[in-house]
Amino acid sequence: MARIVQKFGGTSVADITRIKSVARRVKREVDAGNQVAVVVSAMSGVTNQLVAWTNDLAEIPDAREYDVVVASGEQVTAGLTALALQEIGVPARSFLGWQVPIETDGSHGKARIGGIPTESLRGCMDAGVVAVVAGFQGVGPGDRVTTLGRGGSDTSAVALAAALQAERCDIFTDVDGVYTTDPRIVAKARKLDKITYEEMLEMASLGAKVLQTRSVELAMNHRVRVQVLSSFTDAPGTLVVDEDEIVEQQVVSGIAYSRDEAKVTLVKVADRPGVAAAIFGPLSAGAINVDMIVQNISEDGTTDLTFTVAKADLARTVKVLEEQRGTLVYQALKPDSNVVKISVIGVGMRSHTGVAQLMFKTLADKGINIQVISTSEIKVSVLIAEEYTELALRALHTAYGLDV
Amino acid sequence: MARIVQKFGGTSVADITRIKSVARRVKREVDAGNQVAVVVSAMSGVTNQLVAWTNDLAEIPDAREYDVVVASGEQVTAGLTALALQEIGVPARSFLGWQVPIETDGSHGKARIGGIPTESLRGCMDAGVVAVVAGFQGVGPGDRVTTLGRGGSDTSAVALAAALQAERCDIFTDVDGVYTTDPRIVAKARKLDKITYEEMLEMASLGAKVLQTRSVELAMNHRVRVQVLSSFTDAPGTLVVDEDEIVEQQVVSGIAYSRDEAKVTLVKVADRPGVAAAIFGPLSAGAINVDMIVQNISEDGTTDLTFTVAKADLARTVKVLEEQRGTLVYQALKPDSNVVKISVIGVGMRSHTGVAQLMFKTLADKGINIQVISTSEIKVSVLIAEEYTELALRALHTAYGLDV
Repeated sequence: MARIVQKFGGTSVADITRIKSVARRVKREVDAGNQVAVVVSAMSGVTNQLVAWTNDLAEIPDAREYDVVVASGEQVTAGLTALALQEIGVPARSFLGWQVPIETDGSHGKARIGGIPTESLRGCMDAGVVAVVAGFQGVGPGDRVTTLGRGGSDTSAVALAAALQAERCDIFTDVDGVYTTDPRIVAKARKLDKITYEEMLEMASLGAKVLQTRSVELAMNHRVRVQVLSSFTDAPGTLVVDEDEIVEQQVVSGIAYSRDEAKVTLVKVADRPGVAAAIFGPLSAGAINVDMIVQNISEDGTTDLTFTVAKADLARTVKVLEEQRGTLVYQALKPDSNVVKISVIGVGMRSHTGVAQLMFKTLADKGINIQVISTSEIKVSVLIAEEYTELALRALHTAYGLDV
Repeated sequence: MARIVQKFGGTSVADITRIKSVARRVKREVDAGNQVAVVVSAMSGVTNQLVAWTNDLAEIPDAREYDVVVASGEQVTAGLTALALQEIGVPARSFLGWQVPIETDGSHGKARIGGIPTESLRGCMDAGVVAVVAGFQGVGPGDRVTTLGRGGSDTSAVALAAALQAERCDIFTDVDGVYTTDPRIVAKARKLDKITYEEMLEMASLGAKVLQTRSVELAMNHRVRVQVLSSFTDAPGTLVVDEDEIVEQQVVSGIAYSRDEAKVTLVKVADRPGVAAAIFGPLSAGAINVDMIVQNISEDGTTDLTFTVAKADLARTVKVLEEQRGTLVYQALKPDSNVVKISVIGVGMRSHTGVAQLMFKTLADKGINIQVISTSEIKVSVLIAEEYTELALRALHTAYGLDV
């Protein structure tokens, strides 16, 4: 008998019909002789309504009360899912964050899980009862309700799987797995049977919206075998696993892209010691994350400096830098939000050379200019003009031999 | 400085605009130098939606999961109301049933409050923070979420007022007080400034839907001064108080009516020892409450026996009695749901005679036939044909000198 965690997202529990279908899927796992803990999100749309109400009341709602309001969404789904299971003969009971308890810190709205004592859940599951846990929520200091932030139900599920030492954590969603790239753009994209934690982490943080980054980190740290699969089909999904579980590793596993980036260029900045601190200090103080940075070779004591920030932070970035104009000497400040970041990802890069070179050559062959480059051990990212997104993705997908 | 509990029902918190208006009303009490605990219901309509979902899943939903689902409604209002208060500069925090804790027994769906430790609430209020408590909910054995049943938020409020030894418990609703009778029927009905617990209890159980019966019992037992008033006007409401607080007591304080009754007559029942047990035993076993009972003088060894049950139980009552036909000998069984129970209520009856006589005479003068009579120390109830409801109410209202 194995212990399995199954997580169902908002679209999978959007209405009573789908909740019934979720119950049948859980039943199959129970019938196969497994102990099952289910983690559910709020019915899709519900969280948005709850958030809208808090925003109608306050521009910046008190995070503790915000959490009380939005956590109710998962509470409803947990109760309804337990009812749906009971109705088809599967003993089940719901657990709210404070009942498990899923202990978190006091960072309301984006709480981090500290620990999950599993006595109550184990007792329930050992008695043959499916534990239906409200995702996204926990209990913080002073017995206050906390939430883990958007997409937090993935994190709940993985944390629970780690605490329960579950054999597998199945994340049911509205896509049927992790693809080599976005299949809506590249028709030849291929579903991956397996992907390593490291790759999945890069994919998640570089724009593939299948899994929340934090949940992948958690899975990697606790070696939780995560499976991403669709709640609407019976096809097997993608397993996120340890590198040594993948026998024939491709050099490149996937190609991600993100349109959420914007570029800022400071033209002819006085190139003297402390200039980088003068630029990035104020941005950091303003809680603006800088991603890629490139600095040209200095000429005549000046240099051009380019970096990227989240598109949502662009206006604020420009404002902060203009306020520094007294201490920071530059000729011009050029913001540009018509950019896309394309990344090729693969743990095979560690042992193979020429991966970056193939990327540069492929893009050059299509006449695409690379504006910024950044690399890590298992990925190469470039910033290009947004209009080339589709062209670049297709060309790279073919060049790295990923086409079906 | 006084401690006040204010309770707002579903229509008073129906949307964000009304929740803001509730916050302003609470603020006035705070500005007057009082410590305030607020009890809120679910936004009107929300509970019905939640109940409907549980019914879509199961004919008889597991009461424990039902409670988890429906308790979410008050949770949302509690959080939103705390936000609304904070937004107008009133420090506030929400308390869910398990956070107070409002300890109940394990009768899910209709739990009874056992105790309310007030350390956390007092700590909050002593620090100048308004405690916004989710009504209708508590926490039962095994840390399970419980609910108190429909209208339970009144009970939450009164129980909280008792535990906090509050000076007053204000129940805000969509009517502006307790009337001598239903003002929709009798234009000359008058709002009462004060009413005794005993009278209010009779009014509530006899059909006046202003306060839940259980909350009045609780208020009476703990001598909580309850005020019923409208959340939509600034008019003073009706105070429910001890008898000795009312100086000039009317003989009759109010006239209630209930259309929820149905009459059953067993014609020519064999009149022998044990016949009542043979009739009412099976009904009691079927959880059918019998209200009024009248038995005619026996003739020829048979008698006619008439009693009333809730209209909703009528079909089941007939079924149960027909199943007894073997052991129970009677000529005919006549169900009648076209009846109304009219009750005149007043603690003054204890010291005044002729109250019942005036009722019988008044109805007789209008040609209204009385089918069943029942009396208690402070009320006289009669069952009449439903079509006479308005006529009887108006005539009695005038006869007892209640007209404005």
